[in-house]
Amino acid sequence: MHIVFIQTGGTIDKDYPRGETDHGYEFQIGVPAVQSILPYSYAMFDYSVVEATKKDSLDLTDEDRKLIYETVKSQSVDRIVITHGTDTMVKTAEVLNSITDKTIVLTGAMLPEKFMTSDARFNIGMATASVQALPHGVYIALYGRVVPWKEFPALHQAYEAKALSK
Amino acid sequence: MHIVFIQTGGTIDKDYPRGETDHGYEFQIGVPAVQSILPYSYAMFDYSVVEATKKDSLDLTDEDRKLIYETVKSQSVDRIVITHGTDTMVKTAEVLNSITDKTIVLTGAMLPEKFMTSDARFNIGMATASVQALPHGVYIALYGRVVPWKEFPALHQAYEAKALSK
Amino acid sequence: MHIVFIQTGGTIDKDYPRGETDHGYEFQIGVPAVQSILPYSYAMFDYSVVEATKKDSLDLTDEDRKLIYETVKSQSVDRIVITHGTDTMVKTAEVLNSITDKTIVLTGAMLPEKFMTSDARFNIGMATASVQALPHGVYIALYGRVVPWKEFPALHQAYEAKALSK
Amino acid sequence: MHIVFIQTGGTIDKDYPRGETDHGYEFQIGVPAVQSILPYSYAMFDYSVVEATKKDSLDLTDEDRKLIYETVKSQSVDRIVITHGTDTMVKTAEVLNSITDKTIVLTGAMLPEKFMTSDARFNIGMATASVQALPHGVYIALYGRVVPWKEFPALHQAYEAKALSK
Repeated sequence: MHIVFIQTGGTIDKDYPRGETDHGYEFQIGVPAVQSILPYSYAMFDYSVVEATKKDSLDLTDEDRKLIYETVKSQSVDRIVITHGTDTMVKTAEVLNSITDKTIVLTGAMLPEKFMTSDARFNIGMATASVQALPHGVYIALYGRVVPWKEFPALHQAYEAKALSK
Repeated sequence: MHIVFIQTGGTIDKDYPRGETDHGYEFQIGVPAVQSILPYSYAMFDYSVVEATKKDSLDLTDEDRKLIYETVKSQSVDRIVITHGTDTMVKTAEVLNSITDKTIVLTGAMLPEKFMTSDARFNIGMATASVQALPHGVYIALYGRVVPWKEFPALHQAYEAKALSK
Repeated sequence: MHIVFIQTGGTIDKDYPRGETDHGYEFQIGVPAVQSILPYSYAMFDYSVVEATKKDSLDLTDEDRKLIYETVKSQSVDRIVITHGTDTMVKTAEVLNSITDKTIVLTGAMLPEKFMTSDARFNIGMATASVQALPHGVYIALYGRVVPWKEFPALHQAYEAKALSK
Repeated sequence: MHIVFIQTGGTIDKDYPRGETDHGYEFQIGVPAVQSILPYSYAMFDYSVVEATKKDSLDLTDEDRKLIYETVKSQSVDRIVITHGTDTMVKTAEVLNSITDKTIVLTGAMLPEKFMTSDARFNIGMATASVQALPHGVYIALYGRVVPWKEFPALHQAYEAKALSK
């Protein structure tokens, strides 16, 4: 079994730019979080990690999404995990929707993988399992759930409502 | 959606018994690891955590397995994750095999959840996704893989061979 | 023994502002890191935590430094630890130099305390020990060293030279 | 500045012996915790790490303590940090008491350094600062305090009383 992990950016990969800015208030997209996570998961599958874009998902342009599409399309294997900022996952999923010969799972994190309390390991675990278990199609794994991408806006809205009510 | 997490013990739940033994060389089974992990996973599903046994899996008796079986059997929901020591997962899976109206996923960890480099969060993520995605049956989620329990011995053997060759 | 920990901001306290900005690229100063660290240090001393400013140290104004000075000055105890951004520690130390009836230790971190690989716990440990062990005066604890503040610029320069040479 | 860190064993260095025992209930003493901690502390001092013994401190024999004594005695530098199990630190300190030309700081941890919530980084930070700041003599750094070894039994008793009262 071979899984391709594609980095697009987003919170999961945000790192602290020590010494590289004047102020140090700004995060930057670092190396793909999966490269930290997979070595500790005793993975019995082959994988490759591909960097497509390194952006906060609010900054992804149509051209970036085209690049992501081409990157997915060009893979010879049919199990693809995409790490992505949580804000515009659905937009990217929509672009990928026409790819029907692969299982594509988008995931990300609410806190950077570098944080002690990050959900990154949990979410990459969810995506890794889903990409093995689900039929071809485009899915989003977040908030402890794995759903076909079209169901994600409702899930996201329910999450926001729950978070606000706290 | 409601998921029941059943604790049986194993490495994933091992904690350091500070002050409670003379020597402090021995681990003990602590509170279920899922209770540490799920609050950080922004879970948009209901769940309950049930303690069945608190043992290293090599110490599980036939009676313990009967108790685990009864605990699973008695749940009204059909999505069950069991955290379990890795050594005898297959034996427990075999006992659960006759339960055909639920999706049952056994998982565990190679290092205690308390460890910074533990695979626990990743594995609980895998199990959480699998229990949503897979049809009724008994599965094992470990080594980055989710497989029907009967396929696990071959996977485990492959893992051992790979670990030895390092 | 009573130690007062004064928060001024800086990397050590930077947190990820989940959901609070449009882009999420920017850090913000969170709750004082010592409030996360001290509960895990089995501390057998009394302490209080005072928030003076919550800024990156490059943004501290003369007025902020006056406030920090007044905050230190007004403490009835003579053991003061100040968490501070690393960039302008010396400037603040200089302002505090005229306070001669207290042991004042400035510390901070190269990576936010929330990061798994942060030096925050180590540095707060250094500051806690120093503030107990050293005579009245103003010190800086960073880079594994505790030095009178006037010696810090040379230490910082040596660190930068070493970091660059890697 | 050069600091020698001497490993004797104890909780701070306990690791999970994955796959190396039948049951996996037992910890074992791993590599010195300082070797994990110092690389993340941006240390601007030279150091060496020496393994004297690898034992729970309740198992240290008179001969072990003689070996520790000889190891300290033979160092050419005068700043020595000893990581040690917390149970019998005082006994070892007493043996070292006759060494009057060095600053010797014993420290350890209540939870293994591998644990996410360990006090190891904090305590190694305390010891590192103390060994720089204090005059020759034998000290113990634990419970957020650094004290001459003869004062430790009272501190330890106070800690136990406080822990029990919770």
